[in-house]
Formats: sequence, C-alpha cells, structure tokens
Amino acid sequence: MTTRHPPKPAVPASRSVAMTRFGLHGATQDHRRVPEEVAVALVHDGSTTAVMMATPADIEDLALGFSLTEGIVAEASEIEGLEVVETGIGIEARMWLAKPRATALAARRRYLAGPTGCGLCGVDSLGEAMRPIPAVPDGLRISPAEIHAALAALPAAQALGAATRAVHAAAWWGRGGGFAGVREDVGRHNALDKLVGALAAAGQDRTDGAVFLTSRVSVEMIQKAAVIGAQVLVAVSAPTALAIRTAEQARMTLVGVARRDGFEVFTRPDRVC
Amino acid sequence: MTTRHPPKPAVPASRSVAMTRFGLHGATQDHRRVPEEVAVALVHDGSTTAVMMATPADIEDLALGFSLTEGIVAEASEIEGLEVVETGIGIEARMWLAKPRATALAARRRYLAGPTGCGLCGVDSLGEAMRPIPAVPDGLRISPAEIHAALAALPAAQALGAATRAVHAAAWWGRGGGFAGVREDVGRHNALDKLVGALAAAGQDRTDGAVFLTSRVSVEMIQKAAVIGAQVLVAVSAPTALAIRTAEQARMTLVGVARRDGFEVFTRPDRVC
Repeated sequence: MTTRHPPKPAVPASRSVAMTRFGLHGATQDHRRVPEEVAVALVHDGSTTAVMMATPADIEDLALGFSLTEGIVAEASEIEGLEVVETGIGIEARMWLAKPRATALAARRRYLAGPTGCGLCGVDSLGEAMRPIPAVPDGLRISPAEIHAALAALPAAQALGAATRAVHAAAWWGRGGGFAGVREDVGRHNALDKLVGALAAAGQDRTDGAVFLTSRVSVEMIQKAAVIGAQVLVAVSAPTALAIRTAEQARMTLVGVARRDGFEVFTRPDRVC
Repeated sequence: MTTRHPPKPAVPASRSVAMTRFGLHGATQDHRRVPEEVAVALVHDGSTTAVMMATPADIEDLALGFSLTEGIVAEASEIEGLEVVETGIGIEARMWLAKPRATALAARRRYLAGPTGCGLCGVDSLGEAMRPIPAVPDGLRISPAEIHAALAALPAAQALGAATRAVHAAAWWGRGGGFAGVREDVGRHNALDKLVGALAAAGQDRTDGAVFLTSRVSVEMIQKAAVIGAQVLVAVSAPTALAIRTAEQARMTLVGVARRDGFEVFTRPDRVC
C-alpha cells in the first residue's frame, strides 16, 4: 500500500476553548480542552463510500480499518494507494483498490452511500444492517487477573482522553505484551476502526489478544470486531441485548461493565479462566 | 398525520440477561437488565431514507423527529401517513409525504441512502456534512438556579436509564413547567430525534424552554437542535470544538459539563442570568 501524507496536519486533535464556569459561588472565566471533530470522507476509487464525523488523527488507520471492518477489502494489501487530503471543510481519505476488489465494490455501490460514525455505514436495508456474522477463531484463554491488569493500564494509554475526558478509546491487548495499539476518537466506531487499521498496517497478529473498549457495546462493535476475528472483547460499559445475541452467534467472549472491582461476562465465559 | 400502530409492540425496550460476574471473590451467576437494540428503517414514499440501530420504543416519534431534523419535512403536517411495521429483522417506519415535499425529497434522493444513528444520515459529501446552520430565535433567559433544578429532576425522568444505566436521554424543559417531554435511546441522535418528534406531535411551544441531553455534544446534536430553533442546549457531558463553533454560528447557548456543583457555558452566556 502506498501512503501519501498531506504536507502538514492542519487540524489538531483537541483545542483549548474559553468558557464561563457557573459554580456554587458565581461565574468565572475559564478554559477547557475539548476534542476537535471534523468531517472525514472515505473515498474508494473516486467515489465517496462514507462521510463520518471523527477526531482528526490517524486518518490513514481509520480509512484502512473502515475498509476492512465494512468488508470493502479483506486484506490491507488490497488497498493499492491511500492519500489523505485536508480541505477547508473536512478531510478526504482517497483510496485506490486492487482490481478484483474495485469490481466488487462497484457492484456493491448501490447499497453504499452516505454517512457514518454509526457503524452501519452505507447500509440501506434492514437485511444488510443485520448481516450474517462470521464465527471468530478459538483457542485464546485470558485470566481474570490479565483482564484486570489490562483495564488498570488502559487509562495511561489514553492521551487524548486524559486531555479532554470526552473521547472513546479502542485498544488491542496482546497476551503478555501489554497494549499493541491504542486509538482514540470522538466516535466509538471510529476508535475501533482506527485500531483495526493500525493493527493491519503493522501486521499485528490478532489470534492471541483481546479488544478493549472504553465505550458501550452496540451491535456494530461486535460486527466489526468479529470481522477481524477478535475472540474476546472487553468493554468498560454495558452491551445491548442485540450485541449480546450477536456475540453469541460469532462465538465471541463478550465482557462488559468492566471496572476495578470486577467485570461481567455475557457470552462464552469458558475463555475466561 | 394518520398514524397506524402495529397490532402489538413485539420488542421490549430492555431485557434481563444472564451473565457471569467475576468479582474480587470469584465468579457468580447473575443477571443484568440491558437495553434492546433494533434496526429501524425510515421509509419515505416507499424508499428507505435511513437505517439506524435504535431502542424499540417511540418509533413514531423517531420517524417524525428525524424527518424534521434532517430537513425532509418542515412541519409535522407534511407527513400525511405513518405506519410502523415490525418485521423479523427490524422495524420499518413507513411515511407518506404531502406532494410538494415528496417532489423535493425525490430530488434529494441521490444524496440520501443508508444508515444512521450518526446524525449525518444520508449525507454523502463533506459539503452536506458541514451544511449551513440556521440561527435560532432569541428572547429566552434561563437562570443558573433553573438549570440546576432541571438537572436535578432529570434522573427521575429516565425510566429506561434507571433500569439499564446504558441509554441516553433527551428532554425538553419548559420554563416553569418541568419536563414537557423526555425520550431515551441507545443512540444519542435517536434520543434527540425522538424528543423532537414527540414535541412536534404534541404541538409543544419550543420558544420558551431548553433541550437537556445526558450525552456528549457532537456537531450533529447542534445541527438537529438548531433546526427546531432551540435557544439553549444543556448537556451533562462535554461538547466537541466543532459543536461549539457550530453553536456560535447558530447563536445558540451551549451549556456543557453540567453537574451538581456547576456547569460550563461555551457560547452565548448572556441567556444565562
């Protein structure tokens, strides 16, 4: 994959803004650091596949990861070129696909269009929203102590989160090796897509580790994690009922409400031992 | 508007699920109530405008509110019929538009398709994502004590939130009259759309009150609130930098990080007095 970077990254991931704080003892002028948010268009072979609002960082990872988790490509190598272009009103990630994929996408175009940030990117029917989910591999085991250790290490890995306390993080925890990748975004789907893209670009083995999310788990998070074969997904917040049913179908271990004093395993608890 | 209800609401808004809780003293079998999530297709004049993952409650409000905040109609009366149909794989909200709107939508169809939950529903270009925002009216004043009183009353209004602690709420607080409407959803855009739909269906005056959100504020929340002319938006969590700039353009008062001990006003603090 050929990646061309823009001359300079023009948009910072966060900004300090002025505000008026109304406290118990009256109003004062103050500042807060807030996350930036920018429209990102993902363009495959000259046509826009999706536009999402995202944190303007790691756009190459977002482009590659979205292309993988939404099934536009099956391998990073099928994206032959990637160029990130910052415009006055947003960022374009322009990708060029290898020939067989380009043909397949052209056929799928009638279903694709529009927005995201929602994870259902380009789906225009109930049937595609509830698309069949692949079963993930098996063989991974993770102990409660390992889950607790990873959760304890997660806050220190969230640079933008520490600065703003207003973004989501997705992290890949490799057994015995700490976090092999962490990505942050104002959108939780984007954070996961960025993580997937970063892992794919680095050629990271995904058979011996787990996805950690700071966010809630909706069905799209399970769908995206299943596409990359994640056997275990651990989320700080709660899953939806549909996410649980979908994790069951994918034979994925879904851990939620993961806190300092414990966590809850909703599916396939046999991998936690 | 003619509303036809389905024979019976088949999908509950939350479910109790079995799980294994790993605590400090080992694993136990337990249950947790989690929010349900279902694919909802919004269909205008026989064509799908958007598919979103949503809480299966108040679907009529979602359909009407989305149609308003995304500019498909300007008034509730422009939707001449609304039928909610539950299918095995999701819920369809079928709407029929009054003639002039039907013609306008047909022209816009080339931009609309696909998914949501993201608020950028059916937008397939950076230009439309960053669409011009209308300025909201003026004249409302709200005191810090009123904001605190509304925030204190908000948790008691969140029925699904109390049961699951995993959904967002959007509420309309009318000055002197408490909450005139509260809607909840696993998606924050959906919660706001449902609120807008509920207010429109009830003919609620929106010149003398404020929108309260339990969620973070991304740009789409400002865009949707501006379309209904909300002068004040109060959110429990933080806004993005782009949301703040967009609120400035809309001349909206944006309050964030609203907690028991204070809140922060990012734009137009003159309305808070």
